[in-house]
Amino acid sequence: MNDQTLPPDYLEFAEELADAAAKVTLTYFRLPLEVENKEAERFDPVTLADKGAERAMRDLIAQRFPSHGVLGEEEENIAGEEPWTWVLDPVDGTRSFISGIPLWGTLIALNDGTRPALGVMDQPFTRERFIGDGSTASLNGRPIQTRACRNLADATLMVTSPEHFQQPPYSDLFSKLSSEVRLVRYSGDCYAYCMLALGLVDIVLDPGLKPYDIQALMPIIQGAGGVVTRWDGGDAQNGGDVIACGDPRLHAQILELMQSS
Amino acid sequence: MNDQTLPPDYLEFAEELADAAAKVTLTYFRLPLEVENKEAERFDPVTLADKGAERAMRDLIAQRFPSHGVLGEEEENIAGEEPWTWVLDPVDGTRSFISGIPLWGTLIALNDGTRPALGVMDQPFTRERFIGDGSTASLNGRPIQTRACRNLADATLMVTSPEHFQQPPYSDLFSKLSSEVRLVRYSGDCYAYCMLALGLVDIVLDPGLKPYDIQALMPIIQGAGGVVTRWDGGDAQNGGDVIACGDPRLHAQILELMQSS
Repeated sequence: MNDQTLPPDYLEFAEELADAAAKVTLTYFRLPLEVENKEAERFDPVTLADKGAERAMRDLIAQRFPSHGVLGEEEENIAGEEPWTWVLDPVDGTRSFISGIPLWGTLIALNDGTRPALGVMDQPFTRERFIGDGSTASLNGRPIQTRACRNLADATLMVTSPEHFQQPPYSDLFSKLSSEVRLVRYSGDCYAYCMLALGLVDIVLDPGLKPYDIQALMPIIQGAGGVVTRWDGGDAQNGGDVIACGDPRLHAQILELMQSS
Repeated sequence: MNDQTLPPDYLEFAEELADAAAKVTLTYFRLPLEVENKEAERFDPVTLADKGAERAMRDLIAQRFPSHGVLGEEEENIAGEEPWTWVLDPVDGTRSFISGIPLWGTLIALNDGTRPALGVMDQPFTRERFIGDGSTASLNGRPIQTRACRNLADATLMVTSPEHFQQPPYSDLFSKLSSEVRLVRYSGDCYAYCMLALGLVDIVLDPGLKPYDIQALMPIIQGAGGVVTRWDGGDAQNGGDVIACGDPRLHAQILELMQSS
């Protein structure tokens, strides 16, 4: 099933999914969370956004491509009758979402049975849509690419939360990297990977990702000239501990450093 | 010089300053930084944005209100002949700026000789303009207010960088607070204070601020119903270690906790 050719209308359809998700997420973004209400049914905008946006996307897929599979964060997996599977994370970055910070995104990947062949990261509040197919990548239709950065000393590193790096062996690795790079930035989730694809960040590290956290980002990063793998160098599509670098030489260097430590 | 009445055209002028700064900052935002170029004159978009935006604002002030004072990050202070002083930070959140993350902002305060009486935080990429005068606050013209949150266990805490809290006594305080709150988020700079004013974040902690880092934010936070002081409870307008809370009861509780630790 390698080398499935991506039918051209699949990209258009992926954008329809992003539009449908955006209608739901923007309805709930920045609505007040009832922090002091201890009732079981307190109003929780991010859960409503997550569930509603995934439902909207699943409805469209069921209508248009009923034989395709679906893997999403909120509902059960659907095994398709074709190699194609849509991999959905309606709100990646829920902690940003509930804090009003527009660094969350809707992630939509289309897996061809061997790899994510198409990826969309949509941030509807800032009106940014990143799209990649592994060979090319764009932001709102304009081509993007990662920047050259071969040395740790020149690099900007982003991690979603320092709390992920408090225990060994993660803490040792993080201490070493963060003391050598030029700049460390926190938070970001999917947005951090897109800044890497845009050539403004050099390394993103994330332990413990799920497949739907990373599949949509892989064709964007790769299409922009970057590399994304597990920390052991393996295929990242099933998630796990993930590293992305804009410059493949930097990726090789950090993997070596990880394996020697 | 207390209780200076704010002339109505001063707000309009503050918005002109924000517009002028935005033209410069948006020209440089997301332009590539030459990370591998070691020449002294390497292209550095954030420095150009910072200096250019402050110059544009100073030019307008010199034309329109030549007797007013100016305190800015990039150039020398000008002592005015009137009580009014414009306090400017053209790009607050430079590390976000160079990483492509739209959580930086242009900060414009007007100090009446006793306190910042007017504050603007402008984020031109997301098109968000927060304005406050100590009694009211707005985002893009719509009134905003902080949320009720009297308990640490319900609170969202934002700090710009965990690195600021690695040494005692900051580390002890941060450990205590971060273990008790519901959620800790990193990064944000001025954007974090605006999310507090918007009722989505409850506590922002920042050690070592300069006057121009906080003055524009004070009338916004206060106008939205929040409290902002130094950690010792003193006036925050000259900077230092600053705490803002959306709920005054939470502020009182944390200050007590700080003084007892």
